Amino acid sequence: MSANSSRVSATDRGLAYGDGLFETIRMEGRGAVLLSRHIHRMVTDAAVLGIAVTERELRDAVREAVDRHAGSFGSDGWVLKLVLTRGSGGRGYRPAAEGVPSLIVSASVMPPLPGPEGVEVGLAEFPLTVNPRLAGIKTLNRLEQVMASRELTDDLYELIMRDPAGQLVEGTRTNVLLNAGGHWITPPREQLAVAGIMRAHVLGYLESQGEKVEYSTISPSSLEGKDCRGLYLMNSIIGVVPVRRIDGLDLPVDDALATISNPLDLVES
Amino acid sequence: MSANSSRVSATDRGLAYGDGLFETIRMEGRGAVLLSRHIHRMVTDAAVLGIAVTERELRDAVREAVDRHAGSFGSDGWVLKLVLTRGSGGRGYRPAAEGVPSLIVSASVMPPLPGPEGVEVGLAEFPLTVNPRLAGIKTLNRLEQVMASRELTDDLYELIMRDPAGQLVEGTRTNVLLNAGGHWITPPREQLAVAGIMRAHVLGYLESQGEKVEYSTISPSSLEGKDCRGLYLMNSIIGVVPVRRIDGLDLPVDDALATISNPLDLVES
Repeated sequence: MSANSSRVSATDRGLAYGDGLFETIRMEGRGAVLLSRHIHRMVTDAAVLGIAVTERELRDAVREAVDRHAGSFGSDGWVLKLVLTRGSGGRGYRPAAEGVPSLIVSASVMPPLPGPEGVEVGLAEFPLTVNPRLAGIKTLNRLEQVMASRELTDDLYELIMRDPAGQLVEGTRTNVLLNAGGHWITPPREQLAVAGIMRAHVLGYLESQGEKVEYSTISPSSLEGKDCRGLYLMNSIIGVVPVRRIDGLDLPVDDALATISNPLDLVES
Repeated sequence: MSANSSRVSATDRGLAYGDGLFETIRMEGRGAVLLSRHIHRMVTDAAVLGIAVTERELRDAVREAVDRHAGSFGSDGWVLKLVLTRGSGGRGYRPAAEGVPSLIVSASVMPPLPGPEGVEVGLAEFPLTVNPRLAGIKTLNRLEQVMASRELTDDLYELIMRDPAGQLVEGTRTNVLLNAGGHWITPPREQLAVAGIMRAHVLGYLESQGEKVEYSTISPSSLEGKDCRGLYLMNSIIGVVPVRRIDGLDLPVDDALATISNPLDLVES
């Protein structure tokens, strides 16, 4: 494992091909929200890509970063980012049999968080396509999300991306969850670009409450009916945020998910 | 434009999201094969991504690289790689309004080239998906090609990737061209991950010869019939190479494309 926080080799496969993964973790002092889930996901998805990394290596890197940065940010918290790449080497796209992964760790300030009144979002024109073998994995291949984000205007908090059939799949940086007809609807992992940590946490909470969850993409028309009780955005940094308006359509805002807690894993020094 | 040949900022969007493009150019001393096409493609596709770069900036970078490296490689030639990224900055996926792109230039030795007897290739299990808005563009999002390349064994030169319907689309690092039934078949740009420079050059040659080209993906069964006169791989480094065997099936090898010349643009100092 080669770790470096400011510069990366120009031959790194993360740069050359997006050959790697990343995690973005919400921090409060030495506390890391849902840290175990983040660590577990990165190790699991690295195995899918064939990048060798252990939970121990990631936890050591997080601890070093917390030792260095935890005192530098105020009470609003901070964001810890882990970028794991396959490192350098190989012949073109073909990786070396025994590569040495790179882990790049960085810290940044928490962005402003939306309030309980919810946010206004739009629909991205740029379509979302998902390779079935990479579905849900938070890889460094994120140009589709970048291109959709270029459509964002300052009055909108997020843009929701659609599949080629026009169904709503996910935001550029958030997963979506609809409360309609007495149950919850969210796209299945197989249709997602990124299956977020907060999505998994919220779905676990709903299951524990005996709530019914339907796994499918979201039809634009399902937002218009009287059954629609609310649409939510989720990611590791913002938690769960209600959408009060989408593409010019007002939505009901309720606090059904306001009581979800975000478990803090304290990072020991 | 920020240029650096060995290290890249860890905050560069090329690393973070694969937010950029690359070109791989075959060099012979100070000669660059199809240089004008490479330069033109990078500027054109950068405009699609919204990355500001001019032909002049790229030509200046190539000239500096040629001044530095042309004398360091033998008569087999060398390979010049340009990586253009959106640089650092922005809020997450959303790019900064006025970003400063990064250009990373590197030189490497020419790989061994296959002979006129042709190569043996296989079929990749890993499927190819193409976002219609990014089709044909040589972006830094190349994880699908990396994953397919992991299936490559030492007895095979290349693996051909298929779309979800099982049609042959392109190799991990090559475009494909079939000669069958008295005409040529190659997938249209809209279905390609990368529309190669050599593909464009060869198609231009065929048109100039009055040959008929059909733009479609290639059915596996079309390789088996008596109409099949040959299958070819193409890219900027290897030129045009016949396939003598694919997935255990022997193919006819002819020299119909052996006379294509690769125009050299001499890079003045």
